[in-house]
Order: sequence, then C-alpha cells, then structure tokens
Amino acid sequence: MNTSLQVGKQSIAFEKPVYIMSSASMVGPKEGEGPLRDTFDVVVQDATFGADSWEEGESQMMKETSLLALRKAKLKPEDIRYLFAGDLLGQLIATTFGVVDFNIPLFGLYGACSTAGEALSLGAMTVHAGYADTVLAAASSHFGGAEKQFRFPLEYGNQRPMSSTWTVTGCGAFVLSKEYGEVQISGITTGKVVDYGVKDSLNMGACMAPAAADVLYQHFQDFKRNPKDYDWIVTGDLGKVGKEILCKLMLDQGYDIETVHMDCGMEIYDDVEQDTHSGGSGCGCSAVTLAGKLIQELKVGKLNRILFIPTGALLSTVSYNEGQTVPGIAHAVVIERRKKEEKVG
Amino acid sequence: MNTSLQVGKQSIAFEKPVYIMSSASMVGPKEGEGPLRDTFDVVVQDATFGADSWEEGESQMMKETSLLALRKAKLKPEDIRYLFAGDLLGQLIATTFGVVDFNIPLFGLYGACSTAGEALSLGAMTVHAGYADTVLAAASSHFGGAEKQFRFPLEYGNQRPMSSTWTVTGCGAFVLSKEYGEVQISGITTGKVVDYGVKDSLNMGACMAPAAADVLYQHFQDFKRNPKDYDWIVTGDLGKVGKEILCKLMLDQGYDIETVHMDCGMEIYDDVEQDTHSGGSGCGCSAVTLAGKLIQELKVGKLNRILFIPTGALLSTVSYNEGQTVPGIAHAVVIERRKKEEKVG
Repeated sequence: MNTSLQVGKQSIAFEKPVYIMSSASMVGPKEGEGPLRDTFDVVVQDATFGADSWEEGESQMMKETSLLALRKAKLKPEDIRYLFAGDLLGQLIATTFGVVDFNIPLFGLYGACSTAGEALSLGAMTVHAGYADTVLAAASSHFGGAEKQFRFPLEYGNQRPMSSTWTVTGCGAFVLSKEYGEVQISGITTGKVVDYGVKDSLNMGACMAPAAADVLYQHFQDFKRNPKDYDWIVTGDLGKVGKEILCKLMLDQGYDIETVHMDCGMEIYDDVEQDTHSGGSGCGCSAVTLAGKLIQELKVGKLNRILFIPTGALLSTVSYNEGQTVPGIAHAVVIERRKKEEKVG
Repeated sequence: MNTSLQVGKQSIAFEKPVYIMSSASMVGPKEGEGPLRDTFDVVVQDATFGADSWEEGESQMMKETSLLALRKAKLKPEDIRYLFAGDLLGQLIATTFGVVDFNIPLFGLYGACSTAGEALSLGAMTVHAGYADTVLAAASSHFGGAEKQFRFPLEYGNQRPMSSTWTVTGCGAFVLSKEYGEVQISGITTGKVVDYGVKDSLNMGACMAPAAADVLYQHFQDFKRNPKDYDWIVTGDLGKVGKEILCKLMLDQGYDIETVHMDCGMEIYDDVEQDTHSGGSGCGCSAVTLAGKLIQELKVGKLNRILFIPTGALLSTVSYNEGQTVPGIAHAVVIERRKKEEKVG
C-alpha cells in the first residue's frame, strides 16, 4: 500500500514544503571568468585556496561555502542537525576534511556528479519527515584533483578530445529548513544506475545522458507532467554531446524538451573564449549553478518552477582499466518559487 | 522546535517500528573458515566469485547477496522502492556494477566501514516516513580489492604490524519494511567525522575508536540510556587495539562497557588459528555479522536489544600521502527483537 507521499515508481511528492533557506557558491578562477561570474558568491583566484594541495584546497572550499550558506541563513554549525555531502575524490576526502570542524552528524554520499541532487533529495526527505528542522546539503569538485584522480596528471598536457568536459572547481551549499525560504523543494525522482555500454572516459556526456533520460521520463510518468510544466529542465553536466543525446532519447519517448532544456555544463564556461570543448562537469558544476543563477532567478520570479537533474558518470580508473563501462546515474529535484499564498507577514 | 522523532542532539527515535524483514550474508573462503562460519548464508570458496578480478567479484557478491535477501523476503527487485548501498572501492564500483541490473533507484553511500550503519539508518528513515514500503540496504568489502586500493599489492607480501586488521571479503544485505519482521530498528544515532590526529593506516582501530566513543556517548545522552540497556554494544571493526581504546574512552566518560561490548572484527576470525593480528575490518565485517549471527540470535530471543555501531576509518591514499590524518566516523542503530504484544496472527 502506497501512501500519498509515494508518487509512481520512483518519486516522492512532499506534502509540506521544504525550503531552501539559503544557498552559497564558491568557484575557482576559470569559473570566475565565465558567463556566470556575477552569480557566484565568491570567486577565488588561487585554485588551491591557500592550501598545499588541490585536495586540501577543495576541503577548504567546502568548508568556506558551507559556512557562507550558514551565515546567510543566520545559523551556526551547531544549529544544523544533519549534513548530507559528497565530492568526487576517493573516500570523499574533500568532504571529510572540509566538514570535520563542524561537528555535525554526516551522511557521506557518492553519486559522482549527481551528488548535489542526492544530497538535496535526502536532505529534503529528512526535513519533511520531521527528523530535523534544518540540514545542510553540499557538493564540490575540483579540476586539478579530478584530473589527477580520473585521467592524466596536468603536467602531462594530454590532448583532450572535443567530447571531453572540464571539471568545475566549485562548491555549492544549501541550508534546507521547514521554517522559511523563498524557494522550495516540492518533490524528487531518484535515479537508477543506467548502463548503455559506453566505455569512453573522455565522453562523459554520452555516459550520463541515458541516465538523465531515464529519470526524466520516469519523472514525467510519476508526476503526470510534461516539459511545459517547467521553466527549465536543468541537467548537471551533459555538455554539448550529452545534451544532444538526451534530447534525442526524450524525443524517442515522445517528449520534446529542446526548448526548455538547459545544461549547467554548457552555461558555466564561454564556448568560444574559454575553449572547454563539450562544457563543464563535476559535482560542483550543477551545485554552483543552482546555488547562484537558478536560485537567484527563482527568488525574483524570473523562474517559477525548474526540474534540477544533476547527472553523474560512475567512472573509476580501476573498473575502467579492467575493461568495464562507465554507467550513469541522475537524480531529479523539483524546485519552485514559494507560492504567494504561503507568504508570511 | 523539535518533534518527538528528534531525540537529543543526533538521534531519531522511530514512533512506528521499521522491520528487518530479511537479511542475507555471503563471505569468502577465509571468513568461511572462521568461528562464524555456520552463521553465514553462503561461503564462496573462490574469492573472485567466478569473475575476472576482485572488483568484479565483489560486485557479483553484492548482487547475489541482495538477491538472496530478496528471495528470503519473497520479493523481487521490482518490489523494492529504494536501494541504500555502498562499498570501500573508489567511486563505489562494487555497488555500481553489482546493482545495475536491479533497476532500483539508488542512493550511493560512502561512510568507509560504517556504511552498513549509514544504509540501515537512511533506509529505516525512508520506510518510517512513508517514502517507501520496502527498501534494501547493503554493504560489502573485499580483502583483495581493499589491499590493492589502500595499501600494498598482495604480491608484494608486505609485513603487517600487530595493529593491522584484515579486510573481510563479505556482503550483508537487509530488506527493511514497515509490514513485517521478527527484528526491528527502533532508533538511530548518526555520527560525526572525528579526528584524533592518528596517521597510521595500519592501525585503523585507533583511527575509529574515538568516533565510536563519540557516537556511543551521544547515544547514551540522547536516549537517556546506559550500557545495561543493551545485551550487546556491537562495534564494526575496531579490532583488539581499537576495542581497548574505546573501552578506555568510555570509562573516562563514566560508562563501563567492557562486559557488554562486542566487536565484529574480533568475532569473525580465530585469533590463534587464523592470525589476522588485530582482527577483521571492512564494510562487510559488521554487515555479515549482523546479517548472520546477530539477527539469528535476536530472532530466537537469545538477544533482545543490541546497539549496532559500524565504524569507519576515512582513509585515502591521496590524503594520507599528503600527510593528512585518518579521521573516523561511526553510526549507531538500535536493533531489537520484535516485542511480543506486537505479534500478528
């Protein structure tokens, strides 16, 4: 027997709103030169954030971004009951060392670049159920740390094919609360591991697009909605290559999303000036685009409802070198402007 | 304002029971020769589980264990609404390739060896809130894959200090349901990242014991309980070295847990015959001990209430080689025999 919270096969519709009380974004220098530069809270010119390594720098970034989100909500770490966070580094070291001083109970998450969606989903579920009044959700990535871990040492100067994406150095953090906010999470659709057999670690868009299509199709089915119900359907980091595949896969299912589809990976860098090939990627890519541009536009009423779908490629050098594919996963979160009739005061 | 679900600083007390409908355990040959051999569902003699690599073998193990837990509950993958799972391998590849065929929405988790506790916690929260009627929680580890990733190639034959533990090749899977079961989860206390500055990757017990002490102390505070309220306080994989530290730290806080403390890492191998030094470790260590021995003893009434605390050392070769410490994390889950008055039919 399903309760009314359970919608269709994979979705939850929240009965009471869960608010995004505040959001914060911090990025590195390259992102600070891109088209979204004015939407970020902090642009740091030193990509190691003053630390001795990229990894420690990413930890520093997660720490500072989380603290900024808390300050905006007029909260301290001790006001947060649970933290939902993750990053791309093995064993989530950016998160571990970034949040250790907060003394907040942590649910460590790994969803590759879909982690922001996973964190917002579990955070909203936790607040809505009454397990916490206020939680923090955060996700980060770092170009240097990610290239070192997943591909080639930067010093090697390898050629990057046109299908490759550029890992965003950035962190997005969100305070979720049942109390107040101008933007709310009203539902989620949780994705499955989807494997189309793609084996190209330099074409992450192709690895992730089938997972995005899978969760988007199911979202439309579960909520009985269609592309017209959203101002934007926002994927995380498919890039140009992945976007094309997603639109094609959705068209095959009878949904034309072309005009309402936006990909954070295609927004964050300037295609001509910054030459990142297919676009941006990483947990941070979707997290900072939501924390900055999208939430700002929701707040001022430029947007009313978006479907936020961070997309992850489950790439591992171990499984990849053992001949395995790169499956994808994506998690959808419905984010809306607070309804007028709910306004307080 | 806290609701009644929120207990103290870090805990949740479930108002309605969440049942462990079924559990399954699968282990490798070494674990099958240990003292718990008769409590496991399946002992596999080939540690690669018929696959071409340890990693693929671990995936196979997670798949088979999950399917066995489902069969015991008379369910199919399509009956499961969400899957909460993780392992020790970078990017959770054992999980990714283990569950891909199930087509179940996945929340990928990383809590090092505390993952079984994290999965049971989030799974129980999800069922209790009505987001799902039935979920699956699973965690695995593999000696070969873990040594390769975290320490030395097995072929190198490095000497292991007496403080080192042996990663368990094993997977535990649990079907959680609101409907029926003889064993129930009645509460959780979620742990924080705790860093005592230990830098020895071959002394994981010392890295994790402070995190176990932290969450255990908070559990006693939150629930207003003491060691006498539990038949066993079961940590995951502290081993002999970590156990001693935990008992000492708790005594410093005024709690003598010596007589009710059990560590899965000290139960799973024979100290004399199997010579694993400090004991067993890995996500699988606590998961298979719970799925086998502990749940069996709860079912027959030999135990009435245990506090299950899987313990994780947040070790990464990258951060470790950059001079960082190895922080710990642990998550506590209250597991009880179904109360008599709740019996159906």
